[in-house]
Amino acid sequence: MGAGFAGLEVVKRLADTGAEVILVDRRNHHLFQPLLYQVATAALSPADIATPIRSIVSEYDNVHVVLGEVDSVDLASRHLCYGDEEIGYDWLILAAGATHTYFGNDAWEDRAPGLKTLDEALDIRRRVLMAFEEAEMEGDPEARVAKLTFVVVGAGPTGVEMAGALREIAAETFPRDFRRVDTSTARIILVEGADRVLPGMSEKASRQAKEHLENLGVEVRLDTMVTDMDEEGLVAGGERLEAANVIWAAGVQGARVGSTLQVPLDREGRVRVEPDCSIPGYPHAFVVGDQAAQVDARTGEPVPGVAQGAIQMGEFVGRIIADELKHGTDPQRRPAFTYRDKGSMATIGRARAVADVGAFTFNGISAWLLWSVVHVAFLVGYRNKALVMIHWAWQWLIQSRGARLITGMPEPDVERPVDLSRRDAA
Amino acid sequence: MGAGFAGLEVVKRLADTGAEVILVDRRNHHLFQPLLYQVATAALSPADIATPIRSIVSEYDNVHVVLGEVDSVDLASRHLCYGDEEIGYDWLILAAGATHTYFGNDAWEDRAPGLKTLDEALDIRRRVLMAFEEAEMEGDPEARVAKLTFVVVGAGPTGVEMAGALREIAAETFPRDFRRVDTSTARIILVEGADRVLPGMSEKASRQAKEHLENLGVEVRLDTMVTDMDEEGLVAGGERLEAANVIWAAGVQGARVGSTLQVPLDREGRVRVEPDCSIPGYPHAFVVGDQAAQVDARTGEPVPGVAQGAIQMGEFVGRIIADELKHGTDPQRRPAFTYRDKGSMATIGRARAVADVGAFTFNGISAWLLWSVVHVAFLVGYRNKALVMIHWAWQWLIQSRGARLITGMPEPDVERPVDLSRRDAA
Repeated sequence: MGAGFAGLEVVKRLADTGAEVILVDRRNHHLFQPLLYQVATAALSPADIATPIRSIVSEYDNVHVVLGEVDSVDLASRHLCYGDEEIGYDWLILAAGATHTYFGNDAWEDRAPGLKTLDEALDIRRRVLMAFEEAEMEGDPEARVAKLTFVVVGAGPTGVEMAGALREIAAETFPRDFRRVDTSTARIILVEGADRVLPGMSEKASRQAKEHLENLGVEVRLDTMVTDMDEEGLVAGGERLEAANVIWAAGVQGARVGSTLQVPLDREGRVRVEPDCSIPGYPHAFVVGDQAAQVDARTGEPVPGVAQGAIQMGEFVGRIIADELKHGTDPQRRPAFTYRDKGSMATIGRARAVADVGAFTFNGISAWLLWSVVHVAFLVGYRNKALVMIHWAWQWLIQSRGARLITGMPEPDVERPVDLSRRDAA
Repeated sequence: MGAGFAGLEVVKRLADTGAEVILVDRRNHHLFQPLLYQVATAALSPADIATPIRSIVSEYDNVHVVLGEVDSVDLASRHLCYGDEEIGYDWLILAAGATHTYFGNDAWEDRAPGLKTLDEALDIRRRVLMAFEEAEMEGDPEARVAKLTFVVVGAGPTGVEMAGALREIAAETFPRDFRRVDTSTARIILVEGADRVLPGMSEKASRQAKEHLENLGVEVRLDTMVTDMDEEGLVAGGERLEAANVIWAAGVQGARVGSTLQVPLDREGRVRVEPDCSIPGYPHAFVVGDQAAQVDARTGEPVPGVAQGAIQMGEFVGRIIADELKHGTDPQRRPAFTYRDKGSMATIGRARAVADVGAFTFNGISAWLLWSVVHVAFLVGYRNKALVMIHWAWQWLIQSRGARLITGMPEPDVERPVDLSRRDAA
């Protein structure tokens, strides 16, 4: 269950097996998470990066889609619970993904939203756009600076891409829209606990990404941990920062349902799986994607929590099951999962990116073109591919962002009304 | 204040006058309401029909945008209140639009959402998509029929277009996506108190629209009033209908701020204005758009609450003010507002529409082409024009709807889990 990259790959392999496949997901859409930050920064609309699950699998007659959330799994009796009901299964594939972790500081969640779902992306978009609106109406200079200070915690791909896009909005999209505040003064601070940005990539890529970020005007703080957070700001590396908006791109944790399995989880709450991705002791139950703590059988390195890892695990397990269903292959003879690193990349604003492909590191425009092509290629559905390309072309040409909508606010709560005495200051 | 059709027209006329213009709106976007039903029925994304107000007026240096909701207006002292603050004005243009009225049955509001804002459209989209999901999981045949019964109250353009689009989704978009329910059995019931659909259009157009609706499979009930409503259904024309979803497209009412003016309102809560759109006794305060109860000075007929009426009133008042500011023209010599009916139209599903233009009534494909051209032409911004055309072309070609996303549901609450005993019934 789970209709992310891993889950859909499994379903695809089982399409022609004659097996009855039930695909359970708590959302009705597959989400292309790598572009979620573009929804959060008003570059794309939610529908551009999401596809209804039912329409993805409509050609597979043996696949049933169920909208719902699995509460727990009983591996011994091969049942899963869901609402008040139980479903039995012969084979189980868990692909429920990962969520954020605030490292024990759950109180920070409301203050510093993460970016894993469309609703979270829309929440961040609303907060970001409101910050500029409120700054425009703010009379007190100090409070205005705080409203225009954004802290992004975590410099993995999501954090780096968010920080770059925020800075770009502030410096390039918004200046002509606002009269009183100079939005280009907005501070974007990227805080990372490790000693480099993009710790999952090559050192060269990290260095280049940091350079790109700093050229854009993002303040990068390495070796810096967030130790406290309140309504007005946070403490990072011992320094107090007044910031109205904090975006959390730091910790991930395996989906909650993993804890109901009664099997060992790793420190991030992911299920420790066998080399064949099955759960130890349960050869017919698999975990794939971000929810699995898997290592590459060849190198012993952990498989990274990226789309490629999920797709490859899904493909691997789907093949094993299809094979055993069709040929009655002995589960003892399953192969071990190996990860093929097809490269990793991150984009920093318009036409800047870094990419590691094999031993090569690409930088600048070439990396950005590569990034664009790869992301469009992996989007599900031709409609979304076409739309995303059009949006990007448009933004590239006129430097505007079309999805600058504040929604989900039935009663706009503008705390500080316009201060007329300062209206001419712009 | 108000950045709808009327408000923006006024602003446009005042752009070069040197006057300081403050544009107050409680949303940050101008919304193209005529296409809102397409967001509610998953054909378009919110950003396709909305444009950030700031970017619309960014070229006008004398226009300041304020995000906020005006609570009350004091005409005598020329002040408006807003949060804890007051703003003084020399000229006031009220263009706050209209909202729904449930004719005294305010309890129906939660049960039967209306369609005036993007948030309402997203709410309806969620309800509609969830109805099909729940029907798919529903074991009880009677409950399943109720889940697939949609009642649209009010057969003005919005009601007619909603009913047509809902029927089209059920009969053409969804059948291949669902396994257990036959979505084409969904009942769409359009309830209207008058004796014809589209009462604002010609009788010929009404007759043709009804025919199109019935050919599509919509049940049209004329001379029928809704007298009761509860969680399970409603009573219309004395008949009890079990329906999980009711959409309200019936009554409109002038925006609430009008009631703070202490001047006579009409039965719909709109401000009764002078022939020059000013408020009686206050020649420097105007009301334009859906919030104004205005009559055509030539015919004595009420100006209809449509985009054209709003645009023409806004243009008219903007010109008066610009003229008096520039030439010091005497307010006594203002012209009276006349409405130029450029035609009205409504679309019913794919490639069917009716249109009244002058003495002519168009029908079928030609009306639909006309409808498409006019709607795209009036969309604000080239980006939205292009996107909407692409979406429509896509849907026309492959009969799919791209924006089928259920968002805004942090915790999906699926009441009835899948009933395995019936899983093979499809």
